[in-house]
Amino acid sequence: MSDIGAAEPWVIRETTLSADGFESGRQRWSESVFALANGHIGLRGNLDEGAPTGMPGTYLNSLYEERDLTYPEAGYAFPERTQTIVDAPNGKLIALTVDGERFDVRTGSLRRHERCLDLRAGTVRRDVEWVAPSGAAVRIRSIRLVSFTHPSVAAIRYEVEALDRPVRIRIDSDLVANEAQPDQSDDPRASAVLDSPLRPLSHSPEVLLHRTRRSGIEVASAVAHTGAPVSASSEPDRIRAGLTTTLRPGAPLRLDKFLAYAWAEPDPVTKALADRDEAAGLGFDVLLRRQREYLDDFWAGADVELDGDPEVQQGVRFSLFHVLQAGAQAGPHPIAAKGLTGNGYDGHVLWDTEVFVLPVLTYTHPACVGMALRWRHRTLDEARDRARELRLAGAAYPWRTIGGAECSGYWPAGTAALHVNADIAAAVLRYVAATGDEDFLRECGLEILAETARLWCRVAHADDDGVFHIAGVTGPDEYTALADDNVYTNLLARQNLLGAASHEGLLREAGVTADEIREWREVARGLFIPYAQKRAVHEQHAGFTSLREWDFDRTKDDDYPLMLHFPYLNLYRQQVVKQADLVLAMMLHPRAFTAGEKLRNFVYYEARTVRDSSLSAPVQAVLAAETGHLDLAHDYLAEAALLDLRPGGGESGGDGLHIAACAGVWIALVQGFGGFRDHDGRLSFAPRLPGHLPRLRFRLRHRGSRLRVTVTPRQATYEVTGDRVTFAHHGSPVTLADGESATLPIEPIATRPAPPSPRPPEPRKPMLSNT
Amino acid sequence: MSDIGAAEPWVIRETTLSADGFESGRQRWSESVFALANGHIGLRGNLDEGAPTGMPGTYLNSLYEERDLTYPEAGYAFPERTQTIVDAPNGKLIALTVDGERFDVRTGSLRRHERCLDLRAGTVRRDVEWVAPSGAAVRIRSIRLVSFTHPSVAAIRYEVEALDRPVRIRIDSDLVANEAQPDQSDDPRASAVLDSPLRPLSHSPEVLLHRTRRSGIEVASAVAHTGAPVSASSEPDRIRAGLTTTLRPGAPLRLDKFLAYAWAEPDPVTKALADRDEAAGLGFDVLLRRQREYLDDFWAGADVELDGDPEVQQGVRFSLFHVLQAGAQAGPHPIAAKGLTGNGYDGHVLWDTEVFVLPVLTYTHPACVGMALRWRHRTLDEARDRARELRLAGAAYPWRTIGGAECSGYWPAGTAALHVNADIAAAVLRYVAATGDEDFLRECGLEILAETARLWCRVAHADDDGVFHIAGVTGPDEYTALADDNVYTNLLARQNLLGAASHEGLLREAGVTADEIREWREVARGLFIPYAQKRAVHEQHAGFTSLREWDFDRTKDDDYPLMLHFPYLNLYRQQVVKQADLVLAMMLHPRAFTAGEKLRNFVYYEARTVRDSSLSAPVQAVLAAETGHLDLAHDYLAEAALLDLRPGGGESGGDGLHIAACAGVWIALVQGFGGFRDHDGRLSFAPRLPGHLPRLRFRLRHRGSRLRVTVTPRQATYEVTGDRVTFAHHGSPVTLADGESATLPIEPIATRPAPPSPRPPEPRKPMLSNT
Repeated sequence: MSDIGAAEPWVIRETTLSADGFESGRQRWSESVFALANGHIGLRGNLDEGAPTGMPGTYLNSLYEERDLTYPEAGYAFPERTQTIVDAPNGKLIALTVDGERFDVRTGSLRRHERCLDLRAGTVRRDVEWVAPSGAAVRIRSIRLVSFTHPSVAAIRYEVEALDRPVRIRIDSDLVANEAQPDQSDDPRASAVLDSPLRPLSHSPEVLLHRTRRSGIEVASAVAHTGAPVSASSEPDRIRAGLTTTLRPGAPLRLDKFLAYAWAEPDPVTKALADRDEAAGLGFDVLLRRQREYLDDFWAGADVELDGDPEVQQGVRFSLFHVLQAGAQAGPHPIAAKGLTGNGYDGHVLWDTEVFVLPVLTYTHPACVGMALRWRHRTLDEARDRARELRLAGAAYPWRTIGGAECSGYWPAGTAALHVNADIAAAVLRYVAATGDEDFLRECGLEILAETARLWCRVAHADDDGVFHIAGVTGPDEYTALADDNVYTNLLARQNLLGAASHEGLLREAGVTADEIREWREVARGLFIPYAQKRAVHEQHAGFTSLREWDFDRTKDDDYPLMLHFPYLNLYRQQVVKQADLVLAMMLHPRAFTAGEKLRNFVYYEARTVRDSSLSAPVQAVLAAETGHLDLAHDYLAEAALLDLRPGGGESGGDGLHIAACAGVWIALVQGFGGFRDHDGRLSFAPRLPGHLPRLRFRLRHRGSRLRVTVTPRQATYEVTGDRVTFAHHGSPVTLADGESATLPIEPIATRPAPPSPRPPEPRKPMLSNT
Repeated sequence: MSDIGAAEPWVIRETTLSADGFESGRQRWSESVFALANGHIGLRGNLDEGAPTGMPGTYLNSLYEERDLTYPEAGYAFPERTQTIVDAPNGKLIALTVDGERFDVRTGSLRRHERCLDLRAGTVRRDVEWVAPSGAAVRIRSIRLVSFTHPSVAAIRYEVEALDRPVRIRIDSDLVANEAQPDQSDDPRASAVLDSPLRPLSHSPEVLLHRTRRSGIEVASAVAHTGAPVSASSEPDRIRAGLTTTLRPGAPLRLDKFLAYAWAEPDPVTKALADRDEAAGLGFDVLLRRQREYLDDFWAGADVELDGDPEVQQGVRFSLFHVLQAGAQAGPHPIAAKGLTGNGYDGHVLWDTEVFVLPVLTYTHPACVGMALRWRHRTLDEARDRARELRLAGAAYPWRTIGGAECSGYWPAGTAALHVNADIAAAVLRYVAATGDEDFLRECGLEILAETARLWCRVAHADDDGVFHIAGVTGPDEYTALADDNVYTNLLARQNLLGAASHEGLLREAGVTADEIREWREVARGLFIPYAQKRAVHEQHAGFTSLREWDFDRTKDDDYPLMLHFPYLNLYRQQVVKQADLVLAMMLHPRAFTAGEKLRNFVYYEARTVRDSSLSAPVQAVLAAETGHLDLAHDYLAEAALLDLRPGGGESGGDGLHIAACAGVWIALVQGFGGFRDHDGRLSFAPRLPGHLPRLRFRLRHRGSRLRVTVTPRQATYEVTGDRVTFAHHGSPVTLADGESATLPIEPIATRPAPPSPRPPEPRKPMLSNT
């Protein structure tokens, strides 16, 4: 067995000594956990020697291949092609031969095998003691990093030491293109594309040049070694650098390997070689130091501390680290649902980036949010084309994509989820309010806001009484589709329309007419929000509460996730919710609901929400906290925090981590127990901790300020560095200038036991003391 | 150009002299028009010599191959395999060589080229005078028949005559398997299957034996020739019989060819040879005579005469003939949407068989209805399995299939259209009421009724007020999907539940509990029928009249059919109707609506129905007639009657005729102008003719009686042969015994001009005098 050891605050440590710890499924998961990335390039946590492996993975943001989509029964505007992330040449490979025997964790015996993901260093360190079948014992240590400061660079330090007696070793350090992939798909055409995606164009012992066969993206992969002399050779899909030597105990061999990638630019070979040379010239130690400095700065503005629950403490830092890895240097390219940790969802970006990932980064690392939204602006023409194709107006952003084209193959839960457009607009409004980035607003934001507003104007229609409706669209809950007046969608569309109209001055300068902006306001104000009088709750969509109740008594444990055991036909017709939808609306639009409504709605939907999506628990945690269900909030927080840190189960991240769910851990803590909201650009806090948690501390960046908030069960302390900040604490305004702090009492709330829910929260977190 | 000549009452005559008349698209269409079938086997109207061709076609009912379905994003219970009709060995081929030159309509010159589909003889006759490039002139005549009386047999009489001088001729008469097919699909896997579907098992000069590669159906194809000595040889995929001789003018050569097929039975070779021998032993003239006798009997009980419109007169007979060809000897196998005239819809049967085709056959050729419904009973276990897979109850019949398994690849307009189950139940109830076939009821009907009733009981749910709803299903209109309380579905579900309960005595004997039957009645009586008070019309589904109005002003002529130019996303959200849905409900459930409601509903939906389905016009004709729009009814009648008789356009039947629309012509006339209804097993008539049509006469079979109805503008005459019949005439009961007749006045109605409609009825029928 391999195991993630006791919850250390800054390290994820895995110790593996037995063979089943290297079994393929477990490897897939741990390769995701130990993936390193910077948003630009990403390396899965494969073993240095490349085998055993669950799935190799070297990803370059937006290096994708196209393949055809075919349908048993196609329809107008069903996407005919999709984009699929492909493996870039793999430079992680360093094979070791000891006295003629190849190092492999499955042969000989392991005295030690430990890997550490160090969240402050930004590295994965590996420490191995291996006794070869011949009896020769060696220690192998490696440090891997993907540089936050040099976006196209990754580096590996590889050390071998003879332990008992001199050994003859050979090191083969490879860069390999078109590696064999495990079977990904039932569709033989998909595998065909992924099997050998790169056509070799040229090669030398320093750099390979390839081009994707259909999408035509050129990629150069350069490699250099320092520290020990190697002899290198190349062929079209491989560079191999090797050395052979004799090691004596006490005199380890150290080899530093530098990788640099360049793609989708005019002269990738020159760029890759220059970046490689710069990195090799600086040396591994300098890269390591800069990595730590970068992370020190990040954690200073972003760290979240939770006393009393070391598992969640580790989980939130692990999650934040992976959110940073997904976004730091991504722009102007998408931040995919799996970041660069795996090929799940084909490497696509979906709506959850704007709704989960970007809010966290907006308050912890705002620069990359601007870049991510600039990417949305770069693909605006494709969104306009798609709107035209759909016979709508303005822009219709894709449900899933890498390059900007719609790649959704099931439209009722894809294209029909028009809320993605309002989600993007909301991210624009939030980013601009939180940063004051006027350049972005003028250059990109305004156009996104206006074009998405136009979409809603066309989609909404007035009934005979002049009330506006949005019919036949899909909200966040994927167990409902093509619904009328989904509250989430209508509230976000309203925000989109009014948010665009709020920039009337700039828009008028850009030629938008007053009449058009007036229409946006008229539609926004007339949008219907369905409410079920009889049950005294909001309806997720019009008519939801009149649907048949799901029969949870007859639903067995192994019927979950429901979508694998029930047809959509059945799910869509009933009151069963995959993931927070109305509850998400209450989180994002807190003022659209009274406190009483929030409580009743929360309890009602809690009884009908099965959490078959990893996006659900964090949002339920937030509203559980707001409505006084503090223990339940803690349970959901733990579920989110441990999702990818515990192997196995349907939600295990073998094809990549759930980056939005990672962001959700921060959301559960900061928006849940911290009670943080940012509606309409105004910050507010209503912090509340359950009695068994002594302290929560989190940090936010907001415009020119940093805000540190420390919450204990009875009071909260706000400390400001930088510009003056105004916010609300439990509804009362507070203004703090540079260096000022305020300690304020927490408004008590009646704490409530968890209301009925179809599934017990799982994993139900063990209560650990913080010792 | 080829053309269908002036509308002859009993013949479809095509004269083709120029090359473009043989152009591929036109050939595809005329091959459908001149297709011959008996429900068991079908031959497309390919030229004897096999080229030029639009698409070869020899179909054996339920000879299909399976192929995988893959989805870009699959879901639970999406069908993983489909069934596709495949070409059986083609025995239509007779090639002629004249003085060394191969007869081909595209070479030499044609002095004459005429084909006649004779609706009373049941044959296609061809008459050709061809001058070879060498100058040799020959006359070629052929008669083709697919026997109604010998279901596995087809026969061809082929005559050649030298016209001007002696010629040396060679005839090659072939039976060929795995012929090349034109490209059918964008999906390369589909073509691969269709290209070579049959694996040869054995061959002789008398019979070929093949097996479909995956579905494993064995088919034997036997051939014999009489009238002239031939020498025959065989290879795995071909039998060739040839003769060479010299013809002198005035001494034609005659060759009779007999084909017999046997498949899906234990010893198909023996069966095929026996059937072939029997047919050849009887000889072609006997087959011809029996064919005519069979048709004489059919027309005596089924003919529809319409004075004043020879085009429609021809069209209704053509249509009835093709309905007969689809169903006559089909059972117990499905009657496919295209009959056996082409491979459209992959050869699948859909709901329209029960709703359009079987009602017509119930009153004109009831024996084959019983067989078609026995086939539904034979596949009941698969429907039960499907219901279990869908996590429903009872039986869920497939939306489209050949062998009984669901083959729908787009579930919102497939599996979600649960009304197919009620459609089948309605066909059972109608057939039993009209024939009194108690054996069928006990052996098959009861079980179908009970299992479909169980489905509805599970699907319907009660709201807080105890009103029952059926949510999230798709009705007949495919521009709406996953709707709540579709009126058509709810009315038919009610009929299904009450119809099953009406056989309580027999069901209790079969072990069904009183409680269960009570529940059927309770659900049926509680089902909600949505009505829009504000607009004073019924809603096609709950909320339909609140949807956005379709912008017809901005819809261009070439935007039709809308599904090829607008996404479902857009269509589903708006008040636009592909095909009669609520209007169909009013036809099938006339007593569920008042006369005033029918008029208002008709006008309302008329303005929103685009007739992008061939199933729409006949139903609109019926309700147009009932609501006094008699001229409009005539227009829609003509649109239906001429649909497949006029080449070109998106609705042309190149891949097979629209058999349900053919049935619709009878429906438009008999249920429209004849005002015939059969709700709850009671016959009623409210005939009405527009002033410019002098006379309509139609015949119905009902239990032991034949009823002949003659309608003129002022009165109707009913004549009965056989058992006593009771029916209503404009609401008043009439009872007639054998040999009795009654002439009754027609109740006047205010005739109305056509209400606004988005598309002009087309083709708008020219008014022709009946001279």
